[in-house]
Amino acid sequence: MTGLPDSVTIVEVGPRDGLQNEKQVVPIEIKAGLIDRLADAGVRVIEVGSFVSPKWVPQMADSAELMARITRRAGVRYPVLTPNLKGFEAAKAAGAEEVAIFGAASETFSQKNINCSIAESLERFAPVCEAARSAGIRVRGYVSCVLGCPYEGAIAPGAVADVAARLAAMGCFEISLGDTIGVGTPGKAREMLRAVAAAVPVDRLAVHFHDTYGQALANIYACLEEGVAVVDSAIAGLGGCPYAKGASGNVATEDVVYMLDGLGIGTGIDIHELLAASRFISQALGRTPASKVAQALIARAA
Amino acid sequence: MTGLPDSVTIVEVGPRDGLQNEKQVVPIEIKAGLIDRLADAGVRVIEVGSFVSPKWVPQMADSAELMARITRRAGVRYPVLTPNLKGFEAAKAAGAEEVAIFGAASETFSQKNINCSIAESLERFAPVCEAARSAGIRVRGYVSCVLGCPYEGAIAPGAVADVAARLAAMGCFEISLGDTIGVGTPGKAREMLRAVAAAVPVDRLAVHFHDTYGQALANIYACLEEGVAVVDSAIAGLGGCPYAKGASGNVATEDVVYMLDGLGIGTGIDIHELLAASRFISQALGRTPASKVAQALIARAA
Repeated sequence: MTGLPDSVTIVEVGPRDGLQNEKQVVPIEIKAGLIDRLADAGVRVIEVGSFVSPKWVPQMADSAELMARITRRAGVRYPVLTPNLKGFEAAKAAGAEEVAIFGAASETFSQKNINCSIAESLERFAPVCEAARSAGIRVRGYVSCVLGCPYEGAIAPGAVADVAARLAAMGCFEISLGDTIGVGTPGKAREMLRAVAAAVPVDRLAVHFHDTYGQALANIYACLEEGVAVVDSAIAGLGGCPYAKGASGNVATEDVVYMLDGLGIGTGIDIHELLAASRFISQALGRTPASKVAQALIARAA
Repeated sequence: MTGLPDSVTIVEVGPRDGLQNEKQVVPIEIKAGLIDRLADAGVRVIEVGSFVSPKWVPQMADSAELMARITRRAGVRYPVLTPNLKGFEAAKAAGAEEVAIFGAASETFSQKNINCSIAESLERFAPVCEAARSAGIRVRGYVSCVLGCPYEGAIAPGAVADVAARLAAMGCFEISLGDTIGVGTPGKAREMLRAVAAAVPVDRLAVHFHDTYGQALANIYACLEEGVAVVDSAIAGLGGCPYAKGASGNVATEDVVYMLDGLGIGTGIDIHELLAASRFISQALGRTPASKVAQALIARAA
């Protein structure tokens, strides 16, 4: 334990990681409206979209247009996902100043999800990292399945540390450790984090928890105690769980910010304005926000 | 921090604290079926009912009959709430070996909820404690509003410690500290617990968190780190929030046990049998369990 950080950076992944799981294509003005409201609320990192083939992810086909549509605010970062050099060039042309690449900590997941080994997947990102370095564009790295894999079950902390170290060596300024099936609990999260922090300094690590089993906030709390100061989350818990329809996915930004506010940890985010953004996207999608904080405040107002 | 406990006792409050918030009277065979299934799953403390006036809480009018209906298992405790001497005598006649009394940490809540001061409310429990002592019946004490009050807002940890100390002095073998509006966050939970533990040894303390703002597991985790080893919870998150219809109430037992299992902390509970109990009561009430673990497993099975 290193003690809680004084401030935490929230990386809002709802517009990308959340919305890409939506079946209906969300109109670009809704996406832009959401992103601008999040920035209004004080969110300082907002993942805007993904420069993948529209054949793979039709929901993300408008990412270049969206980059032009949003009101870019000073001090706010707007990263986008770039799975390959073609995507990177398109992101650069769209004015991206930060991109993200991704690896899995599970060999089986890598094979089943992107049809290659972990090592091969990382090799494919090398040209993206090189091109980004020349262009002065920052690269963030994601690692998925850090606490469990839908095929392999438990994942060894050492396997996560290996992938994280390779992403760091490739030049990623920050590595986001994703419990993408939400099976983790605080002790395992802490153990995994310590293993990774032995390879990559903790101030270059972020955590990304899904709330499938309701454990996300407890896991985040344990990681804060380990000195992590960057947390990924999705407004209104957007996206659900890609592996179990009807189950929870990304932890809701509202719930994370409520906890951080209570802990006296600064985020720069106004929770009331954040709830306005939550209400905006939930109404646009015609659903109840997957956030207990949002639900409690809706219930209190009723 | 004292390190995590090796084992935790779950105090299942669903049949009483949960069901008493149900508008429809739940048939006695459903209540008994739930309690017996919980015992089958390995739950070792199950709050059966409340010996209050049926005019106040019609749902609890069958508590004496229910005590006779359940299959009492060796090693399982079946406490009941007894707000006064009349209730205590009825509980004793029904064969209760453990009863519970309750105070609030908020003066305004006490006045509005039971129309007397905290001090007066505790005085009313003195004859119950005396009668219980003569009868060899154990008394558990609840303190509500330990992290916030619907009328007063934040509650000083010292106020909680005062009420807890008075309940302990009256002879309560254990004091359950309830964040009954679910507003707490882990740092405040920890601070409150430390204040109380300075007055009542931590091995006589239990925690009782509502999940209204999604913070319950993170709060429980922080309290485990402080050495608490007794946790109240309700199967399927029964009961909802009495202050905001549609919001979450008691933390779900399934979610707590999932976390404890992951932490390697023994509970004696089989989570699969626990989920069978959750399914049983959720089907009887015609609703989705308010447990992310239950929802995730339902979604995976679908």
